[in-house]
Amino acid sequence: MNKGVVLAADLGGTNLRMAAVDSDGGLLYRASTATPRSFDHGELLNSIEILSRECNEAIPGDHTIEAFGIAAAAVIDFDKGRIRNAPNMPELNGLDLSAELTEKIGVPVTVENDATAAAIGENWLGASRGVASSIFVTLGTGVGGGIILNGIPLRGVDGTAGEIGHICVEPAGVACGCGSTGCVEQYSSATAIMRMANELQKHYPDSLLKQNGELTPLNVFDAGMNGDELAVEVFRRMGSYLGIALADLVNVLNPEVIVIGGGAAAGWELFIEHLRAEVSKRAFKQPAERAKIIRAQLGNDAGILGAARLAFIKLA
Amino acid sequence: MNKGVVLAADLGGTNLRMAAVDSDGGLLYRASTATPRSFDHGELLNSIEILSRECNEAIPGDHTIEAFGIAAAAVIDFDKGRIRNAPNMPELNGLDLSAELTEKIGVPVTVENDATAAAIGENWLGASRGVASSIFVTLGTGVGGGIILNGIPLRGVDGTAGEIGHICVEPAGVACGCGSTGCVEQYSSATAIMRMANELQKHYPDSLLKQNGELTPLNVFDAGMNGDELAVEVFRRMGSYLGIALADLVNVLNPEVIVIGGGAAAGWELFIEHLRAEVSKRAFKQPAERAKIIRAQLGNDAGILGAARLAFIKLA
Repeated sequence: MNKGVVLAADLGGTNLRMAAVDSDGGLLYRASTATPRSFDHGELLNSIEILSRECNEAIPGDHTIEAFGIAAAAVIDFDKGRIRNAPNMPELNGLDLSAELTEKIGVPVTVENDATAAAIGENWLGASRGVASSIFVTLGTGVGGGIILNGIPLRGVDGTAGEIGHICVEPAGVACGCGSTGCVEQYSSATAIMRMANELQKHYPDSLLKQNGELTPLNVFDAGMNGDELAVEVFRRMGSYLGIALADLVNVLNPEVIVIGGGAAAGWELFIEHLRAEVSKRAFKQPAERAKIIRAQLGNDAGILGAARLAFIKLA
Repeated sequence: MNKGVVLAADLGGTNLRMAAVDSDGGLLYRASTATPRSFDHGELLNSIEILSRECNEAIPGDHTIEAFGIAAAAVIDFDKGRIRNAPNMPELNGLDLSAELTEKIGVPVTVENDATAAAIGENWLGASRGVASSIFVTLGTGVGGGIILNGIPLRGVDGTAGEIGHICVEPAGVACGCGSTGCVEQYSSATAIMRMANELQKHYPDSLLKQNGELTPLNVFDAGMNGDELAVEVFRRMGSYLGIALADLVNVLNPEVIVIGGGAAAGWELFIEHLRAEVSKRAFKQPAERAKIIRAQLGNDAGILGAARLAFIKLA
């Protein structure tokens, strides 16, 4: 019997990762390359074609690739499969990715925003499995988000919905690249952890972090787990501010589950208590008790699995 | 030809208002009474029955009442037509309003949260007519909200969604009745306008507001329109803080229209410019330009018309 398989890709500004995925979410084969950067999109389309051929040749002969899902770090026109705006890959703005790839590869192509795809992936096979309304928050260089309400990914009229990282948590706070001040991204991203550790060092002369040459989010986390007061304070702020933003979402959306992923989620033990305290204080009792706040389970594969899920949905 | 008519009611802690409504949203007859307050819900059910009989007798003979929609100031279990939690009418907590009234009145009964019903009413016949994704904000004693995404009212898992008034806009700000601090309700409601006018009086010795005996939101508005600096500052704060909360919603939901109603919307000319400035500053460009921020059109009838709309939808 012929077994249906899809291709799924995660297209970021640095890496292009791809996998052949079966209908249970099994990753049959992986391939990746550096995202080609040039003045037009031709090289990218070629790289995608090469990786897809590699995946196709690597899977067993009784498997057929039937569709292709792509999670991209961009604002997407989902219905058209078009890239509206890719802040880190501006050469892709306006690219009809779905149409171009359908022609090259010969299967239906779905394109989704990467954070929304990660929300869909976690909802299919990860922390929010089986739940109708969930929010995915990713703590990396920035803070990203994907929202699923009553089983439907929330994309918004222009595909820009889910910008959880730019919820304001301190109106006169730190300037954000988006033009606002006090966005939660400035307090709860991996970048923010390092900035706050630097800023607060002068208040903690005994901190061991001062003596380490390189400051990384992992160093701050390790120091915090060893009781370093500076590191503990950094994660207290990080968790409290994220809690303010999530309390807003609990009050406005009343979701069942909030999934937290991304690199800085590694500091879970140091921030989750402060985060939950803010949600309990600031959100109404009933929705606050309802919203389970849990760690993501799929790591870097959430986006690729979400893209695979969308490809299978397109086939159904 | 027999013309279908529904009953629609707006059940608040103070007044119970009802109307017979035709399928174009025409209000054929209105009736109202003070909301009966007692230790159980029997009186309320009787009052509703009396008003519904009055409406039924008042409409022309070729019209038949076919369904009943109720907008209530409460958290609702929409699918069951049950009142989960009515903070200002705790005697109604747990009441199977739909089942009880269906038995008394003999037509299908729909129950909806009043702010969500108002969002539906404005979407049917008012400011957000014909729009798929809209947000309704009501500025009264508190700040309430109703959200419609892709044509579907957002109720949340427990019916508590849409609590826009408790978005945090000043984390260490004014204490709110909900237990949090710095909720937008503490800066942008009619109540907040009066509080801020009182608080700021000492900084504005020349303000004419000081000399008026009674301080009402309307007095503050009139003074502001006459150039009183205290009043102008109160509405600047009111609009700026509401803008912070709406920028959050623009970033997270990417709606087409935000409709602002309620008594304090009367101060529109004094706050809207400050509100829009915050949204422009804090929300991403594309969704900020997309979201039209406009005044409500249906006044106090938004909730009743939304309830009527739901009753007609139930019949369809």
